[in-house]
Amino acid sequence: MTAGAETTGVGPGRPRLEQRRRQGRTARAEILDAAAELFTANGYGNTSTRAVADAVGIRQASLYHHFAAKEDILDALLAETVAVPAPLAERLRTEAVPAVVRLYALAWYDVWQLCAARWNTAALYAIPELRTERFRRFRLRRDELRRQYETLAAATVDRSGATGVSAAIVLPFRLVETVVDIRSDEGDAPEWAVRAIPDAIIRMLGRPGELAEVRAQARAFLSACGIEFSDGA
Amino acid sequence: MTAGAETTGVGPGRPRLEQRRRQGRTARAEILDAAAELFTANGYGNTSTRAVADAVGIRQASLYHHFAAKEDILDALLAETVAVPAPLAERLRTEAVPAVVRLYALAWYDVWQLCAARWNTAALYAIPELRTERFRRFRLRRDELRRQYETLAAATVDRSGATGVSAAIVLPFRLVETVVDIRSDEGDAPEWAVRAIPDAIIRMLGRPGELAEVRAQARAFLSACGIEFSDGA
Repeated sequence: MTAGAETTGVGPGRPRLEQRRRQGRTARAEILDAAAELFTANGYGNTSTRAVADAVGIRQASLYHHFAAKEDILDALLAETVAVPAPLAERLRTEAVPAVVRLYALAWYDVWQLCAARWNTAALYAIPELRTERFRRFRLRRDELRRQYETLAAATVDRSGATGVSAAIVLPFRLVETVVDIRSDEGDAPEWAVRAIPDAIIRMLGRPGELAEVRAQARAFLSACGIEFSDGA
Repeated sequence: MTAGAETTGVGPGRPRLEQRRRQGRTARAEILDAAAELFTANGYGNTSTRAVADAVGIRQASLYHHFAAKEDILDALLAETVAVPAPLAERLRTEAVPAVVRLYALAWYDVWQLCAARWNTAALYAIPELRTERFRRFRLRRDELRRQYETLAAATVDRSGATGVSAAIVLPFRLVETVVDIRSDEGDAPEWAVRAIPDAIIRMLGRPGELAEVRAQARAFLSACGIEFSDGA
Protein backbone atom coordinates (compact mmCIF):
# COMPACT_ATOMS: atom_id res chain seq x y z
CA MET A 1 0.00 0.00 0.00
CA THR A 2 1.46 3.36 -0.95
CA ALA A 3 0.97 6.79 0.57
CA GLY A 4 -2.29 8.32 -0.46
CA ALA A 5 -3.68 5.06 -1.82
CA GLU A 6 -6.79 5.49 0.29
CA THR A 7 -9.03 8.47 0.82
CA THR A 8 -11.64 8.66 3.52
CA GLY A 9 -14.25 11.42 3.63
CA VAL A 10 -13.30 14.74 5.12
CA GLY A 11 -14.52 14.88 8.71
CA PRO A 12 -16.21 17.89 10.20
CA GLY A 13 -14.18 20.36 12.26
CA ARG A 14 -10.52 21.19 11.59
CA PRO A 15 -9.78 22.73 8.21
CA ARG A 16 -7.55 20.59 5.99
CA LEU A 17 -5.30 21.26 3.06
CA GLU A 18 -6.91 18.44 1.17
CA GLN A 19 -8.83 15.17 1.52
CA ARG A 20 -7.95 12.84 4.36
CA ARG A 21 -5.46 10.33 3.09
CA ARG A 22 -4.49 8.25 6.06
CA GLN A 23 -5.81 5.43 8.14
CA GLY A 24 -6.80 6.48 11.67
CA ARG A 25 -9.79 7.97 13.41
CA THR A 26 -7.95 10.94 14.89
CA ALA A 27 -5.38 13.37 13.55
CA ARG A 28 -2.89 11.86 15.98
CA ALA A 29 -3.50 8.36 14.61
CA GLU A 30 -3.17 9.62 11.06
CA ILE A 31 0.15 11.26 11.85
CA LEU A 32 1.44 8.02 13.41
CA ASP A 33 0.26 6.01 10.41
CA ALA A 34 2.00 8.31 7.93
CA ALA A 35 5.17 8.49 10.01
CA ALA A 36 5.34 4.69 10.37
CA GLU A 37 5.16 4.31 6.62
CA LEU A 38 7.74 7.00 5.84
CA PHE A 39 10.17 6.03 8.62
CA THR A 40 10.17 2.37 7.57
CA ALA A 41 10.26 3.05 3.82
CA ASN A 42 12.73 5.94 3.63
CA GLY A 43 14.51 5.86 6.98
CA TYR A 44 13.96 7.90 10.14
CA GLY A 45 16.86 10.24 9.45
CA ASN A 46 15.69 10.87 5.89
CA THR A 47 12.12 11.82 6.88
CA SER A 48 11.21 15.36 7.94
CA THR A 49 8.14 16.32 10.00
CA ARG A 50 7.21 18.35 6.92
CA ALA A 51 7.10 15.17 4.84
CA VAL A 52 4.91 13.51 7.49
CA ALA A 53 2.52 16.49 7.56
CA ASP A 54 2.34 16.45 3.75
CA ALA A 55 1.53 12.73 3.74
CA VAL A 56 -1.34 13.33 6.18
CA GLY A 57 -2.55 16.40 4.29
CA ILE A 58 -2.17 18.80 7.22
CA ARG A 59 0.02 21.81 7.86
CA GLN A 60 3.30 21.31 9.71
CA ALA A 61 2.03 23.66 12.45
CA SER A 62 -0.92 21.31 13.02
CA LEU A 63 1.44 18.36 13.36
CA TYR A 64 3.41 20.22 16.05
CA HIS A 65 0.14 20.64 17.94
CA HIS A 66 0.16 16.85 18.46
CA PHE A 67 3.90 16.12 18.57
CA ALA A 68 6.47 18.71 19.62
CA ALA A 69 9.30 16.96 17.77
CA LYS A 70 10.02 14.11 15.38
CA GLU A 71 11.47 12.12 18.28
CA ASP A 72 8.08 12.21 20.02
CA ILE A 73 6.46 10.61 16.98
CA LEU A 74 9.08 7.86 16.97
CA ASP A 75 8.65 7.31 20.69
CA ALA A 76 4.86 6.93 20.33
CA LEU A 77 5.30 4.43 17.47
CA LEU A 78 7.81 2.35 19.41
CA ALA A 79 5.60 2.36 22.51
CA GLU A 80 2.80 0.78 20.45
CA THR A 81 4.95 -2.17 19.36
CA VAL A 82 5.67 -3.11 22.97
CA ALA A 83 2.24 -2.14 24.33
CA VAL A 84 0.51 -4.90 22.39
CA PRO A 85 2.26 -7.97 23.90
CA ALA A 86 3.03 -6.37 27.30
CA PRO A 87 -0.35 -6.96 29.02
CA LEU A 88 -0.31 -10.61 27.99
CA ALA A 89 3.28 -10.98 29.19
CA GLU A 90 2.23 -9.46 32.52
CA ARG A 91 -0.75 -11.78 32.89
CA LEU A 92 1.39 -14.80 32.03
CA ARG A 93 3.57 -14.07 35.04
CA THR A 94 1.11 -15.61 37.47
CA GLU A 95 -0.94 -18.08 35.43
CA ALA A 96 -1.14 -21.68 36.63
CA VAL A 97 -0.39 -23.24 33.24
CA PRO A 98 2.96 -24.89 32.41
CA ALA A 99 5.80 -22.53 31.45
CA VAL A 100 6.17 -24.17 28.04
CA VAL A 101 2.53 -23.32 27.26
CA ARG A 102 2.91 -19.75 28.49
CA LEU A 103 6.07 -19.21 26.46
CA TYR A 104 4.41 -20.69 23.38
CA ALA A 105 1.35 -18.45 23.84
CA LEU A 106 3.43 -15.30 24.26
CA ALA A 107 5.63 -16.01 21.22
CA TRP A 108 2.62 -16.98 19.12
CA TYR A 109 0.71 -13.80 19.89
CA ASP A 110 3.79 -11.61 19.57
CA VAL A 111 4.84 -12.96 16.15
CA TRP A 112 1.23 -12.67 15.02
CA GLN A 113 0.93 -9.02 16.08
CA LEU A 114 4.31 -8.15 14.48
CA CYS A 115 2.98 -9.68 11.24
CA ALA A 116 -0.46 -8.07 11.56
CA ALA A 117 0.82 -4.53 12.22
CA ARG A 118 0.03 -2.29 9.27
CA TRP A 119 3.64 -1.13 8.96
CA ASN A 120 6.83 -2.91 9.99
CA THR A 121 7.44 -0.36 12.74
CA ALA A 122 9.58 -2.69 14.85
CA ALA A 123 12.24 -2.41 12.12
CA LEU A 124 13.03 0.95 13.73
CA TYR A 125 14.53 -0.86 16.77
CA ALA A 126 17.82 -0.96 14.88
CA ILE A 127 18.31 2.79 14.41
CA PRO A 128 21.17 4.35 16.40
CA GLU A 129 18.91 7.13 17.79
CA LEU A 130 17.30 4.53 20.07
CA ARG A 131 20.46 4.26 22.11
CA THR A 132 20.18 7.91 23.23
CA GLU A 133 18.81 9.11 26.56
CA ARG A 134 15.58 10.24 24.87
CA PHE A 135 14.56 6.62 24.32
CA ARG A 136 15.62 5.23 27.66
CA ARG A 137 12.04 4.69 28.79
CA PHE A 138 11.24 2.72 25.66
CA ARG A 139 14.36 0.60 26.11
CA LEU A 140 13.34 -0.19 29.68
CA ARG A 141 9.87 -1.30 28.58
CA ARG A 142 11.32 -3.49 25.86
CA ASP A 143 13.80 -4.93 28.39
CA GLU A 144 10.86 -5.84 30.62
CA LEU A 145 9.26 -7.81 27.81
CA ARG A 146 12.60 -9.44 27.06
CA ARG A 147 13.01 -10.49 30.69
CA GLN A 148 9.55 -12.06 30.64
CA TYR A 149 10.63 -14.19 27.68
CA GLU A 150 13.81 -15.16 29.50
CA THR A 151 11.97 -16.10 32.70
CA LEU A 152 9.53 -18.32 30.81
CA ALA A 153 12.34 -19.82 28.72
CA ALA A 154 14.37 -20.61 31.84
CA ALA A 155 11.38 -22.40 33.36
CA THR A 156 10.81 -24.29 30.12
CA VAL A 157 14.42 -25.46 29.93
CA ASP A 158 14.67 -26.44 33.58
CA ARG A 159 11.87 -28.94 33.36
CA SER A 160 13.10 -30.65 30.22
CA GLY A 161 16.28 -32.15 31.63
CA ALA A 162 18.34 -31.46 28.49
CA THR A 163 21.91 -30.32 29.14
CA GLY A 164 23.84 -27.40 27.67
CA VAL A 165 20.65 -25.63 26.66
CA SER A 166 20.58 -22.93 29.31
CA ALA A 167 22.56 -20.46 27.17
CA ALA A 168 19.59 -20.56 24.78
CA ILE A 169 17.15 -18.82 27.14
CA VAL A 170 18.12 -15.44 25.65
CA LEU A 171 17.25 -16.60 22.14
CA PRO A 172 13.42 -16.94 22.07
CA PHE A 173 12.94 -13.16 22.34
CA ARG A 174 15.50 -12.69 19.58
CA LEU A 175 13.97 -15.32 17.32
CA VAL A 176 10.56 -13.63 17.66
CA GLU A 177 12.09 -10.37 16.46
CA THR A 178 13.59 -12.02 13.35
CA VAL A 179 10.08 -11.78 11.92
CA VAL A 180 10.82 -8.06 11.55
CA ASP A 181 13.95 -8.73 9.44
CA ILE A 182 12.13 -11.30 7.33
CA ARG A 183 9.32 -8.83 6.73
CA SER A 184 11.83 -6.12 5.75
CA ASP A 185 13.64 -8.41 3.32
CA GLU A 186 10.57 -9.98 1.76
CA GLY A 187 8.45 -6.83 1.80
CA ASP A 188 5.57 -8.83 3.24
CA ALA A 189 4.57 -10.28 6.62
CA PRO A 190 5.70 -13.94 6.76
CA GLU A 191 2.45 -15.68 7.77
CA TRP A 192 4.19 -19.06 8.04
CA ALA A 193 6.31 -17.67 10.87
CA VAL A 194 3.28 -17.27 13.16
CA ARG A 195 3.49 -20.98 13.82
CA ALA A 196 7.06 -21.84 12.80
CA ILE A 197 8.76 -19.46 15.25
CA PRO A 198 6.93 -20.59 18.43
CA ASP A 199 7.54 -24.20 17.37
CA ALA A 200 11.26 -23.52 16.82
CA ILE A 201 11.50 -21.77 20.19
CA ILE A 202 10.23 -24.77 22.13
CA ARG A 203 12.48 -27.14 20.17
CA MET A 204 15.62 -25.07 20.65
CA LEU A 205 15.02 -25.20 24.40
CA GLY A 206 15.52 -28.96 24.21
CA ARG A 207 11.91 -30.10 23.87
CA PRO A 208 11.61 -32.07 20.66
CA GLY A 209 8.68 -34.04 19.36
CA GLU A 210 5.10 -33.17 18.54
CA LEU A 211 3.91 -29.79 19.72
CA ALA A 212 0.20 -30.32 19.02
CA GLU A 213 -0.66 -30.59 22.71
CA VAL A 214 1.34 -27.47 23.69
CA ARG A 215 -0.27 -25.56 20.83
CA ALA A 216 -3.79 -26.66 21.83
CA GLN A 217 -3.21 -25.59 25.43
CA ALA A 218 -1.73 -22.26 24.32
CA ARG A 219 -4.72 -21.64 22.08
CA ALA A 220 -7.16 -22.43 24.92
CA PHE A 221 -5.24 -20.12 27.23
CA LEU A 222 -5.17 -17.22 24.76
CA SER A 223 -8.84 -17.77 24.07
CA ALA A 224 -9.57 -17.51 27.80
CA CYS A 225 -7.68 -14.17 27.70
CA GLY A 226 -10.02 -13.03 24.92
CA ILE A 227 -7.31 -13.34 22.25
CA GLU A 228 -8.24 -15.10 19.01
CA PHE A 229 -6.22 -15.01 15.79
CA SER A 230 -5.31 -17.10 12.79
CA ASP A 231 -2.49 -19.51 13.63
CA GLY A 232 -0.68 -19.15 10.35
CA ALA A 233 -0.85 -22.89 9.70
CA MET B 1 37.20 1.69 21.59
CA THR B 2 36.50 5.28 20.58
CA ALA B 3 37.57 7.23 17.52
CA GLY B 4 41.16 8.32 17.75
CA ALA B 5 41.91 6.01 20.68
CA GLU B 6 44.87 4.60 18.79
CA THR B 7 47.56 6.34 16.84
CA THR B 8 49.93 4.56 14.55
CA GLY B 9 53.05 6.19 13.15
CA VAL B 10 52.70 8.40 10.13
CA GLY B 11 53.74 6.42 7.06
CA PRO B 12 55.92 7.80 4.31
CA GLY B 13 54.28 9.19 1.21
CA ARG B 14 50.96 10.97 1.12
CA PRO B 15 50.76 14.20 3.11
CA ARG B 16 48.30 14.11 6.03
CA LEU B 17 46.48 16.71 8.04
CA GLU B 18 47.58 15.04 11.23
CA GLN B 19 48.69 11.75 12.74
CA ARG B 20 47.12 8.52 11.54
CA ARG B 21 44.24 7.68 13.79
CA ARG B 22 42.67 4.61 12.31
CA GLN B 23 43.25 0.90 12.11
CA GLY B 24 44.22 -0.29 8.66
CA ARG B 25 47.35 -0.64 6.58
CA THR B 26 46.11 1.38 3.65
CA ALA B 27 44.18 4.66 3.33
CA ARG B 28 41.30 2.65 1.93
CA ALA B 29 41.23 0.36 4.96
CA GLU B 30 41.40 3.37 7.28
CA ILE B 31 38.46 5.00 5.55
CA LEU B 32 36.44 1.79 5.85
CA ASP B 33 37.33 1.48 9.53
CA ALA B 34 36.27 5.05 10.30
CA ALA B 35 33.09 4.76 8.26
CA ALA B 36 32.10 1.49 9.96
CA GLU B 37 32.42 3.14 13.34
CA LEU B 38 30.52 6.29 12.41
CA PHE B 39 27.79 4.53 10.42
CA THR B 40 27.07 2.09 13.24
CA ALA B 41 27.33 4.65 16.05
CA ASN B 42 25.55 7.64 14.51
CA GLY B 43 23.60 6.17 11.61
CA TYR B 44 24.38 6.04 7.91
CA GLY B 45 22.07 8.95 7.06
CA ASN B 46 23.58 11.11 9.80
CA THR B 47 27.19 10.60 8.68
CA SER B 48 28.76 12.75 5.97
CA THR B 49 31.82 11.81 3.92
CA ARG B 50 33.37 14.91 5.50
CA ALA B 51 32.93 13.37 8.95
CA VAL B 52 34.55 10.15 7.73
CA ALA B 53 37.51 12.07 6.25
CA ASP B 54 37.89 14.01 9.52
CA ALA B 55 37.89 10.78 11.54
CA VAL B 56 40.67 9.38 9.34
CA GLY B 57 42.62 12.63 9.41
CA ILE B 58 42.59 13.14 5.64
CA ARG B 59 41.03 15.74 3.35
CA GLN B 60 37.62 15.03 1.84
CA ALA B 61 39.20 15.24 -1.63
CA SER B 62 41.56 12.39 -0.69
CA LEU B 63 38.60 10.29 0.42
CA TYR B 64 36.93 10.80 -2.97
CA HIS B 65 40.08 9.45 -4.58
CA HIS B 66 39.22 6.08 -3.00
CA PHE B 67 35.42 6.21 -2.95
CA ALA B 68 33.41 8.33 -5.38
CA ALA B 69 30.39 8.45 -3.06
CA LYS B 70 29.22 7.53 0.43
CA GLU B 71 27.21 4.66 -1.04
CA ASP B 72 30.42 3.12 -2.37
CA ILE B 73 31.86 3.06 1.15
CA LEU B 74 28.72 1.37 2.46
CA ASP B 75 28.80 -1.15 -0.36
CA ALA B 76 32.43 -2.06 0.38
CA LEU B 77 31.66 -2.51 4.09
CA LEU B 78 28.65 -4.72 3.40
CA ALA B 79 30.61 -6.81 0.92
CA GLU B 80 33.14 -7.60 3.66
CA THR B 81 30.49 -9.01 6.02
CA VAL B 82 29.36 -11.53 3.43
CA ALA B 83 32.81 -12.19 1.97
CA VAL B 84 34.04 -13.80 5.18
CA PRO B 85 31.59 -16.74 5.43
CA ALA B 86 30.96 -17.07 1.66
CA PRO B 87 34.03 -19.17 0.72
CA LEU B 88 33.30 -21.61 3.55
CA ALA B 89 29.63 -21.82 2.49
CA GLU B 90 30.78 -22.54 -1.06
CA ARG B 91 33.20 -25.26 0.04
CA LEU B 92 30.51 -26.85 2.25
CA ARG B 93 28.36 -27.39 -0.82
CA THR B 94 30.28 -30.44 -1.91
CA GLU B 95 31.91 -31.82 1.22
CA ALA B 96 31.28 -35.45 2.15
CA VAL B 97 30.44 -34.79 5.80
CA PRO B 98 26.86 -35.00 7.17
CA ALA B 99 24.65 -31.95 6.56
CA VAL B 100 24.16 -31.43 10.30
CA VAL B 101 27.93 -31.06 10.73
CA ARG B 102 28.24 -28.71 7.77
CA LEU B 103 25.39 -26.53 9.01
CA TYR B 104 26.88 -26.45 12.50
CA ALA B 105 30.31 -25.49 11.11
CA LEU B 106 28.90 -22.69 8.95
CA ALA B 107 26.78 -21.19 11.75
CA TRP B 108 29.64 -21.50 14.25
CA TYR B 109 32.14 -19.71 12.02
CA ASP B 110 29.61 -17.09 10.92
CA VAL B 111 28.50 -16.18 14.47
CA TRP B 112 32.15 -16.08 15.48
CA GLN B 113 33.13 -13.71 12.66
CA LEU B 114 30.13 -11.43 13.36
CA CYS B 115 31.32 -11.25 16.99
CA ALA B 116 34.98 -10.82 16.07
CA ALA B 117 34.43 -8.00 13.57
CA ARG B 118 35.87 -4.76 14.93
CA TRP B 119 32.58 -2.90 14.33
CA ASN B 120 29.05 -4.24 14.21
CA THR B 121 28.83 -3.48 10.49
CA ALA B 122 26.12 -6.06 9.81
CA ALA B 123 23.74 -3.83 11.81
CA LEU B 124 23.59 -1.75 8.62
CA TYR B 125 21.59 -4.54 6.92
CA ALA B 126 18.46 -2.93 8.37
CA ILE B 127 18.79 0.49 6.74
CA PRO B 128 16.20 1.31 4.05
CA GLU B 129 18.89 2.40 1.55
CA LEU B 130 19.78 -1.28 1.11
CA ARG B 131 16.52 -1.94 -0.67
CA THR B 132 17.51 0.40 -3.52
CA GLU B 133 18.89 -0.67 -6.90
CA ARG B 134 22.37 0.50 -5.90
CA PHE B 135 22.66 -2.41 -3.43
CA ARG B 136 21.10 -5.10 -5.57
CA ARG B 137 24.42 -6.87 -6.05
CA PHE B 138 24.98 -7.02 -2.30
CA ARG B 139 21.45 -8.33 -1.73
CA LEU B 140 22.05 -11.09 -4.27
CA ARG B 141 25.27 -12.14 -2.53
CA ARG B 142 23.56 -12.20 0.85
CA ASP B 143 20.70 -14.20 -0.67
CA GLU B 144 23.23 -16.74 -1.91
CA LEU B 145 24.56 -17.23 1.61
CA ARG B 146 21.00 -17.47 2.91
CA ARG B 147 20.17 -20.16 0.37
CA GLN B 148 23.20 -22.13 1.46
CA TYR B 149 21.90 -22.09 5.04
CA GLU B 150 18.48 -23.21 3.82
CA THR B 151 19.90 -26.05 1.73
CA LEU B 152 21.92 -27.38 4.64
CA ALA B 153 18.98 -26.92 7.05
CA ALA B 154 16.66 -28.81 4.69
CA ALA B 155 19.12 -31.69 4.54
CA THR B 156 19.47 -31.65 8.34
CA VAL B 157 15.71 -31.76 8.89
CA ASP B 158 15.06 -34.46 6.30
CA ARG B 159 17.27 -36.95 8.01
CA SER B 160 15.91 -36.41 11.52
CA GLY B 161 12.40 -37.73 10.88
CA ALA B 162 10.74 -35.06 13.06
CA THR B 163 7.43 -33.75 11.71
CA GLY B 164 6.24 -30.17 11.26
CA VAL B 165 9.79 -28.85 11.37
CA SER B 166 10.25 -28.05 7.68
CA ALA B 167 8.98 -24.47 8.06
CA ALA B 168 12.00 -23.90 10.31
CA ILE B 169 14.59 -24.25 7.53
CA VAL B 170 14.45 -20.49 6.95
CA LEU B 171 15.27 -19.74 10.57
CA PRO B 172 18.93 -20.80 11.05
CA PHE B 173 20.19 -17.94 8.86
CA ARG B 174 17.95 -15.54 10.78
CA LEU B 175 19.04 -16.83 14.17
CA VAL B 176 22.70 -16.33 13.20
CA GLU B 177 21.97 -12.68 12.39
CA THR B 178 20.34 -12.08 15.80
CA VAL B 179 23.91 -11.86 17.10
CA VAL B 180 23.98 -8.46 15.39
CA ASP B 181 20.91 -7.22 17.33
CA ILE B 182 22.27 -8.58 20.60
CA ARG B 183 25.56 -6.85 19.96
CA SER B 184 23.74 -3.56 19.18
CA ASP B 185 21.63 -3.77 22.34
CA GLU B 186 24.40 -4.87 24.67
CA GLY B 187 27.13 -2.75 23.12
CA ASP B 188 29.42 -5.75 23.14
CA ALA B 189 29.90 -8.94 21.12
CA PRO B 190 28.02 -11.79 22.87
CA GLU B 191 30.77 -14.43 23.15
CA TRP B 192 28.35 -17.00 24.63
CA ALA B 193 26.41 -16.92 21.34
CA VAL B 194 29.31 -18.44 19.39
CA ARG B 195 28.29 -21.80 20.79
CA ALA B 196 24.68 -21.22 21.89
CA ILE B 197 23.37 -20.21 18.44
CA PRO B 198 24.73 -23.21 16.47
CA ASP B 199 23.44 -25.49 19.27
CA ALA B 200 19.98 -23.86 19.14
CA ILE B 201 19.91 -24.16 15.33
CA ILE B 202 20.40 -27.92 15.37
CA ARG B 203 17.83 -28.35 18.15
CA MET B 204 15.18 -26.25 16.45
CA LEU B 205 15.51 -28.46 13.37
CA GLY B 206 14.25 -31.35 15.48
CA ARG B 207 17.54 -32.86 16.60
CA PRO B 208 17.62 -32.83 20.38
CA GLY B 209 20.17 -34.39 22.69
CA GLU B 210 23.88 -33.98 23.16
CA LEU B 211 25.69 -32.08 20.45
CA ALA B 212 29.25 -32.93 21.55
CA GLU B 213 29.79 -35.27 18.62
CA VAL B 214 28.45 -32.82 16.02
CA ARG B 215 30.59 -30.07 17.52
CA ALA B 216 33.72 -32.24 17.47
CA GLN B 217 33.17 -33.14 13.83
CA ALA B 218 32.48 -29.51 12.91
CA ARG B 219 35.68 -28.45 14.64
CA ALA B 220 37.70 -31.09 12.83
CA PHE B 221 36.19 -30.04 9.52
CA LEU B 222 36.89 -26.34 10.08
CA SER B 223 40.39 -27.17 11.17
CA ALA B 224 40.91 -29.09 7.92
CA CYS B 225 39.79 -25.91 6.12
CA GLY B 226 42.47 -23.97 8.00
CA ILE B 227 39.93 -22.23 10.25
CA GLU B 228 40.66 -22.13 13.97
CA PHE B 229 38.90 -19.94 16.52
CA SER B 230 37.75 -19.87 20.11
CA ASP B 231 34.44 -21.71 20.49
CA GLY B 232 32.96 -19.26 22.97
CA ALA B 233 32.36 -22.03 25.54
